[in-house]
Amino acid sequence: MTAAVLVRQGELRTEQRPVPTPGPGEVLVRITSVGVCGSDTHYFTEGRIGPCVVESPLVLGHEPAGVIVSLGAGVANRAVGQRVSLEPGIPDPLSAQSLAGCYNLDPGVRFFATPPIDGVFSEYAVHPAAFCHPVPDSVSDDAAALLEPLSVALAARQAGRIQLGDAVLVAGAGPIGLLISKVAQLAGAVVTLTDVRAERLAVARIYGATHTFMAGEQPHVEPSFDVFIDATGAEPAILGGLARLAPRGRCVLVGMGSDTIALPVPLVQGRELLITGTFRYANTWPTAIALAASGQVDLDGLVTSAHGLFDVESALSAGANPGALKAVVHP
Amino acid sequence: MTAAVLVRQGELRTEQRPVPTPGPGEVLVRITSVGVCGSDTHYFTEGRIGPCVVESPLVLGHEPAGVIVSLGAGVANRAVGQRVSLEPGIPDPLSAQSLAGCYNLDPGVRFFATPPIDGVFSEYAVHPAAFCHPVPDSVSDDAAALLEPLSVALAARQAGRIQLGDAVLVAGAGPIGLLISKVAQLAGAVVTLTDVRAERLAVARIYGATHTFMAGEQPHVEPSFDVFIDATGAEPAILGGLARLAPRGRCVLVGMGSDTIALPVPLVQGRELLITGTFRYANTWPTAIALAASGQVDLDGLVTSAHGLFDVESALSAGANPGALKAVVHP
Amino acid sequence: MTAAVLVRQGELRTEQRPVPTPGPGEVLVRITSVGVCGSDTHYFTEGRIGPCVVESPLVLGHEPAGVIVSLGAGVANRAVGQRVSLEPGIPDPLSAQSLAGCYNLDPGVRFFATPPIDGVFSEYAVHPAAFCHPVPDSVSDDAAALLEPLSVALAARQAGRIQLGDAVLVAGAGPIGLLISKVAQLAGAVVTLTDVRAERLAVARIYGATHTFMAGEQPHVEPSFDVFIDATGAEPAILGGLARLAPRGRCVLVGMGSDTIALPVPLVQGRELLITGTFRYANTWPTAIALAASGQVDLDGLVTSAHGLFDVESALSAGANPGALKAVVHP
Amino acid sequence: MTAAVLVRQGELRTEQRPVPTPGPGEVLVRITSVGVCGSDTHYFTEGRIGPCVVESPLVLGHEPAGVIVSLGAGVANRAVGQRVSLEPGIPDPLSAQSLAGCYNLDPGVRFFATPPIDGVFSEYAVHPAAFCHPVPDSVSDDAAALLEPLSVALAARQAGRIQLGDAVLVAGAGPIGLLISKVAQLAGAVVTLTDVRAERLAVARIYGATHTFMAGEQPHVEPSFDVFIDATGAEPAILGGLARLAPRGRCVLVGMGSDTIALPVPLVQGRELLITGTFRYANTWPTAIALAASGQVDLDGLVTSAHGLFDVESALSAGANPGALKAVVHP
Repeated sequence: MTAAVLVRQGELRTEQRPVPTPGPGEVLVRITSVGVCGSDTHYFTEGRIGPCVVESPLVLGHEPAGVIVSLGAGVANRAVGQRVSLEPGIPDPLSAQSLAGCYNLDPGVRFFATPPIDGVFSEYAVHPAAFCHPVPDSVSDDAAALLEPLSVALAARQAGRIQLGDAVLVAGAGPIGLLISKVAQLAGAVVTLTDVRAERLAVARIYGATHTFMAGEQPHVEPSFDVFIDATGAEPAILGGLARLAPRGRCVLVGMGSDTIALPVPLVQGRELLITGTFRYANTWPTAIALAASGQVDLDGLVTSAHGLFDVESALSAGANPGALKAVVHP
Repeated sequence: MTAAVLVRQGELRTEQRPVPTPGPGEVLVRITSVGVCGSDTHYFTEGRIGPCVVESPLVLGHEPAGVIVSLGAGVANRAVGQRVSLEPGIPDPLSAQSLAGCYNLDPGVRFFATPPIDGVFSEYAVHPAAFCHPVPDSVSDDAAALLEPLSVALAARQAGRIQLGDAVLVAGAGPIGLLISKVAQLAGAVVTLTDVRAERLAVARIYGATHTFMAGEQPHVEPSFDVFIDATGAEPAILGGLARLAPRGRCVLVGMGSDTIALPVPLVQGRELLITGTFRYANTWPTAIALAASGQVDLDGLVTSAHGLFDVESALSAGANPGALKAVVHP
Repeated sequence: MTAAVLVRQGELRTEQRPVPTPGPGEVLVRITSVGVCGSDTHYFTEGRIGPCVVESPLVLGHEPAGVIVSLGAGVANRAVGQRVSLEPGIPDPLSAQSLAGCYNLDPGVRFFATPPIDGVFSEYAVHPAAFCHPVPDSVSDDAAALLEPLSVALAARQAGRIQLGDAVLVAGAGPIGLLISKVAQLAGAVVTLTDVRAERLAVARIYGATHTFMAGEQPHVEPSFDVFIDATGAEPAILGGLARLAPRGRCVLVGMGSDTIALPVPLVQGRELLITGTFRYANTWPTAIALAASGQVDLDGLVTSAHGLFDVESALSAGANPGALKAVVHP
Repeated sequence: MTAAVLVRQGELRTEQRPVPTPGPGEVLVRITSVGVCGSDTHYFTEGRIGPCVVESPLVLGHEPAGVIVSLGAGVANRAVGQRVSLEPGIPDPLSAQSLAGCYNLDPGVRFFATPPIDGVFSEYAVHPAAFCHPVPDSVSDDAAALLEPLSVALAARQAGRIQLGDAVLVAGAGPIGLLISKVAQLAGAVVTLTDVRAERLAVARIYGATHTFMAGEQPHVEPSFDVFIDATGAEPAILGGLARLAPRGRCVLVGMGSDTIALPVPLVQGRELLITGTFRYANTWPTAIALAASGQVDLDGLVTSAHGLFDVESALSAGANPGALKAVVHP
């Protein structure tokens, strides 16, 4: 099979590799679509994300959809030919964290495209059947791939305990921010979206935001949001959002970027704010599938370019194109 | 009546003032004991705490106990002669925050010894009957006064959702840290206390901590605490505590001091930590009274010096004495 | 002013009474619309609801909207001419329950049309300003009145912790069941509505339910609902709903009727179900107003008949008419 | 090896069976102590518990402790010679319920001594290593076995969200009721214990209850408990407990017995009570071990008789002896 391999920082190469064989409890999936994430691009351009360093050739890509082509031993509840969305992390299901319902926080989790685990910019992949979620025909291949970023948004909603009637501020109108915005609206919130780039706010209403403002343009406002979700990772956005939170307001840090932010302790205390962050997701696929299948979330509308396996480099740099939201790779 | 008045930064004076008259729903209380808090000392030495500036003469003291000497109109559930502990904040009970159960966060709350509201280093005070909590005889006058810092500790426990079996780290072995430590133990936690001064850790075990360590002396430890409560306000303590939190660990910022701390965003995200702060307390007095009355919390043991109204200055500086924990004023 | 008075069980009479005068913190409201509730009808036909007995003449009606015509002393945040929706219960805001955020559970609460407190089938009423919620012009008089049943629905959602992605079963397609259905959908749930009368299910989809079934017609189904809300008070409906709950499913008993139900203890244990009930509502008006003002909930669509003060008896019996949902009284 | 087999209702026989071989991820344990549970006795005398019928010979016993004697393939974190407490249920760790943190509710769970799964009244048993929890030497063999009923108590505490300051009523002073009582006290609650038999209340104080009363003897009391835990399964006890709950009070049904109880709906609604039940436990062993190892819970003190494998019948009937609390079997 063909795989696009990051040989070293900045250098991609397609290679021929043997098709893997599914072990017990696993299935072999022919990959049909893989979403491109900012972290893929970051590994490509920087060769690392924080402590995770690309030290040997690595296949990128961790937002895959595909079709099951064979079953490993003992797989009873999946079938050859089934279209599936792959939840990319494989935890030890008997770890303390997994048994407590936070399998995403199991320190032993193996995650696609996180060194040294290969990702899925390739024609085939094996994966535990339990993490290959069947999707109905109303969910396209691309949408099945993009259940992964939708899961990031669902995890943010859960962490922020967004519920009916909440006033929610979302910073960052990239794919993640837009999906958070949409998910918050579907949860009954009134959503305001902010970004530093006016053009990104153009699609805000499609993704659930009824109000928008340019970041930095409304310095003096009443603290009136119940929830603030940061999808930028930028310190000014985070501090601006915190300042707009009402008493007992909740802040969820989703975007990566800043190593530290200057947290205003008296503000956190005086309003008894709640601040947390999310690390991927757990138990989100069933809801993600339902939202995509019913048409409540338009994942296909996020796709602004599609690329082949020999064209992964352009997929990784597509985010810089004007109007680009999400690139996908079709192996 | 006599009152100790902070005329301006650094200058105290006793004055004769008229005994106030209780309005509808209020009672007049003869003050028997007032705990001295770090914030009283701070107003005395600095003339301000953050945005709260002493611009006209101010009576300090906000941890009072006393005896009811007369009742205002319409007070049915209190009696002359009753010994009471005064919960110092007076919210608008019909504000949105009060109706939602967070009356401490009502922006209109009036709080003893917060400019321009006078405190209780005086012989008498009027206060709403509902916030004058009767105490049984097993609670001394000093203990009745110190239900206020105990309430701070109870609010910290609540914010940290400390429960049976939790491993809790408390930073700061002053009165607040010790009371948090004790309250956490009573809630079923295993408590570790840390401080920069070894001698302050000597009483740790009495106040519920079964483990102690000197701050900064255990750099390389496993993140293993379920909850971290900071009672120092010092950035190194806060960052050290955060680093020791297990996945889904909770941090409560109680101590005041740092304006900002350099919050490590990847840590918050990677472990999905929860960070919050407390602002005073709400609905804590019933539990505080029960814990003091049953002897589960020894509040009298915290008192290391007592002072008269003409001696408030020495009360405000007593915290610097070796071995000092808590000073009280007996008007 | 004219008031419709329940002289004794089954006997209504209009009387002339003096217009009341607002006390401190109160406003005088000219009533424009009052929703008719099943409990009003029940008092009329039975003379009692459980332990609440009509022992002296009583004005019924507890879902009022109106216009402020004068202000009592100390009312600063309301104005003459303001259109308001009246939240009918008046708690002691300093009771333990109120201070804890459950003012609806204050045992001393005074509630319109609950003996011996008069209701609002009258031209005027006085009420605390804090419980007279201003409404924008996009909310009609009838809709302003029906914020009360909408609040019942919001309380049910809150008690059932309905959130995005939940599968929710609602039993009873009367006004309350329909509003619960709609509120659950707005909170992101997939809603199934059931009733014993097929014709009542006709409007299900308008009020948010995407699935319906006739009660008793689907005996053998998988337990698959996350939440079940009963708006019937009928034991068969409640037991049927409980049996359909998935593990950790939540049940909220809203409908009144059964004094007891035969709760299946092994089912509650084996699936660790959570069962609760709601008593009116607290802190719901802001969200109710927002949902009505934005058009997300169509309250006017529930109104199937309007009646004058001299016609209250027909209003109280309108519920029996075919197709009737909600009657209103226009004083 | 020798095993005590329930051949049919009321008939026990010891048999020689081959020592089982641990599969991958499993260990072989030499059983040292097994607690006898009411459900064992019930299977013996009735041949069934509700829908679970003994249709072929069954080994009873599901509260085992032992010593690891051999390791199956791939077991890295256990060692031969380790003393362990066996958590008796084996869920599919990849089921939806397990991944959500409720592995006890996985419908496919296999549980010792639940037909047709054999229990552990035998010399050896194989079990997944992950559910064989190592215990320190300060925990005796009997105590290691009784971590199972302690886990039932911990699950009850969790379901009742018992926390510092709660007033808790426990009905039933058998081993489970006493352990719930103790666990509630350790969590900071003030505990009242009630039973129909005065002599069972004698040990109440040792197990954390500071107040006791004979069931049925205090008909007219104020509803003042925050939490009520039933460990009797008897309808009068449950209804009596519910009537004593304060507004927003929580009830946990732990005891088995009644098929249905006549739930008073108006009470549940009027006080917004929360009612739930527990099914075994999840994630309780770490806390259970800590409480036993530190001496906070005296499990050995519950043991009132010990029996050999050839004496299981007397172990199963020991509960009827005066003063009996808990029998154990020492294979």
